[in-house]
Amino acid sequence: MNHSPTAARLATRIERLKPSLVREILAVANKPGIISFAGGLPAPDLMPDMRDCIDPDTALDQYGASEGETAFRSAVAEWITHNGLPVAPSQVLALSGSQQGLDLAAKLLIDDGTPVVTESPSYLAALQVFELFGASVLPLALGRDGPDPATLDALLRQHRPACVYLIPSFQNPSGYCYSPEVRKVIAEVLDRHDAVLIEDDPYRSVSLDVTHPMQPICSYLKRVPWIYLGSFSKILRPGWRVGYLAASPQLMPYLVRLKQASDLHTQRPAQAAVANWLRHAQRDADLARLRAGYRLRRDAMQTALERHFGDLADWDVPQGGLFFWLRLRQHQATRSTLDATLARGVVFMPGESFYPGPMKPTNTMRLNYSLSTPAEMERGLAILADCIAAVSAA
Amino acid sequence: MNHSPTAARLATRIERLKPSLVREILAVANKPGIISFAGGLPAPDLMPDMRDCIDPDTALDQYGASEGETAFRSAVAEWITHNGLPVAPSQVLALSGSQQGLDLAAKLLIDDGTPVVTESPSYLAALQVFELFGASVLPLALGRDGPDPATLDALLRQHRPACVYLIPSFQNPSGYCYSPEVRKVIAEVLDRHDAVLIEDDPYRSVSLDVTHPMQPICSYLKRVPWIYLGSFSKILRPGWRVGYLAASPQLMPYLVRLKQASDLHTQRPAQAAVANWLRHAQRDADLARLRAGYRLRRDAMQTALERHFGDLADWDVPQGGLFFWLRLRQHQATRSTLDATLARGVVFMPGESFYPGPMKPTNTMRLNYSLSTPAEMERGLAILADCIAAVSAA
Repeated sequence: MNHSPTAARLATRIERLKPSLVREILAVANKPGIISFAGGLPAPDLMPDMRDCIDPDTALDQYGASEGETAFRSAVAEWITHNGLPVAPSQVLALSGSQQGLDLAAKLLIDDGTPVVTESPSYLAALQVFELFGASVLPLALGRDGPDPATLDALLRQHRPACVYLIPSFQNPSGYCYSPEVRKVIAEVLDRHDAVLIEDDPYRSVSLDVTHPMQPICSYLKRVPWIYLGSFSKILRPGWRVGYLAASPQLMPYLVRLKQASDLHTQRPAQAAVANWLRHAQRDADLARLRAGYRLRRDAMQTALERHFGDLADWDVPQGGLFFWLRLRQHQATRSTLDATLARGVVFMPGESFYPGPMKPTNTMRLNYSLSTPAEMERGLAILADCIAAVSAA
Repeated sequence: MNHSPTAARLATRIERLKPSLVREILAVANKPGIISFAGGLPAPDLMPDMRDCIDPDTALDQYGASEGETAFRSAVAEWITHNGLPVAPSQVLALSGSQQGLDLAAKLLIDDGTPVVTESPSYLAALQVFELFGASVLPLALGRDGPDPATLDALLRQHRPACVYLIPSFQNPSGYCYSPEVRKVIAEVLDRHDAVLIEDDPYRSVSLDVTHPMQPICSYLKRVPWIYLGSFSKILRPGWRVGYLAASPQLMPYLVRLKQASDLHTQRPAQAAVANWLRHAQRDADLARLRAGYRLRRDAMQTALERHFGDLADWDVPQGGLFFWLRLRQHQATRSTLDATLARGVVFMPGESFYPGPMKPTNTMRLNYSLSTPAEMERGLAILADCIAAVSAA
């Protein structure tokens, strides 16, 4: 009998599921002794103490509702409202991390060939999900204050995309934060068409110097439906996998059913603990302490970058979020130095993977500042700069 | 300005996302005072004490690997191997509940129009996921010892499905358990074609009287790729949402990437606790106690059913799993009595929703026995029988 294995016949979408450079980099990043600027891991020492927030109720051991816990939905609705987007608890869906919101949004909106607008560059794992579901991604160039509304208007007019995916506050990877004016005008542009806005807002609580309220664009919309994605992974416990979305009432019944089909519901003990933290007297003090800690690290990174990259690259000091975004002055693909930096124990994220379209500026790199100590930044950036200068001189 | 909301343009798959009768029934089932035979909730009082198994390591607060925790994958590989399917830790993927395995399998294998074989009747939420992804479901009739292998062979030959979805041990909803002979012959039939086997095995640990080892069909396969889905939700903590899959090595790279795109990874503290429980000295005693408790409830349900349904319906005493499956003797749609039973505080699951094909025997019903006390069974089944007899007499 022939025992050679039979090849599985896979769905056509699997052709679009490319091996990910990022996965390979992150796999290396976790090895002991490596200095990693690659991932987006928050600082463990700045996470709030949540022992007070654990709910010992054994009722949470049983299966729960697909929508999420009543207490969670209500605390999160208050939190989103506090952040400038007034929503009712019935508009909130508990997620197994906000990445799941991208999966649900893709299931809701994307067929094979569906046009979707994203910023360029944009969040890599969002691009992966949209492309997996067959999206034809239309890149929208991003400036310091956000994208150009007229360019978005033209894309909407010409391609009639099903949705527009934006990260207006401390965008990943650029770190840019849309100005209040751009937020308003973008909403007006969106309201003239019929694409659903998917607004991803995971970094809002890691706001370091922005003085305006970073009001969600969803809050300005008058006509078009929207999905707003939020995370606790940058401030509480990423390992618990609990996030949320809020959405226009018309989309909620579909999103709840898609959630149910995906994993029945989100784990309950973490929902209870997060709801308790959101209403805890210590909450704002926890956040202030976290921001102060991140400010110190961001500044330490800036100091080390000035020392080692002052002649090699240009960048803006991020006003929030977890990343610096660098453009090398020479036309040099940062990816080509990865093997060399890796051999010397340092990893970073080449910028080209973040670009959805055919134009992929390869002289870019994303550097995380939240995980390393100032000593590691100093040592790691010296090695990184050395490797880049070596290629540049070759 | 016109502020009437714009309708979203949704993906075509959303047309297949029907409002679910089951969701409506389960929403009612959770109301206080209702006697529910509808859901598949395990008995909270029979869940093992897991306080010893909680791992206080704060490293689990951070983001983790998409594949799952090393300790979890290794303990689960031992567990699956112990259950008759030898696998390596590298073949194990941690899931946010085994429902997620169905979502990943559908993403991996199902395009719009892809033929898929399922038992008839079958697990409702599996049918929903497969149909959401566009599957054309081919029903395979189920007998007490499993399906007829020749019928499966003909379906494989004629339609060349991408996958075959089976629940060989205490099938949901029928409660049937495939005989060892049928398992072996089904594997031989599958090995003659090239469909992937998706074997769903959530009820194995709720085995009450079966004396054979219920060896997974996957273990008999010599050629075709397979995905084996497992759950802890019937024995430990469904509210934690932690399950697993094991798969042929050739499928693992795809499944891991699909998992990453879906929710990055499964919550870590629960993976650690489950791994500790799997290796805990109390494990087998916990399972024996759980089985003894379920045996008592199953027997109490059987006694109450004999009293109230002896003249109305036929059924087999389930040898495991969480359900009784009844066929009314009269040709009467059980669904039509739902409003009446509901008005009197009792819910159950009409059987027709579990049938994938056009043939939907409507005189069937699924009754859960694990959640109600003997007194509730007595009261609830008296009401149920009364409502059915009333329709029958009308």
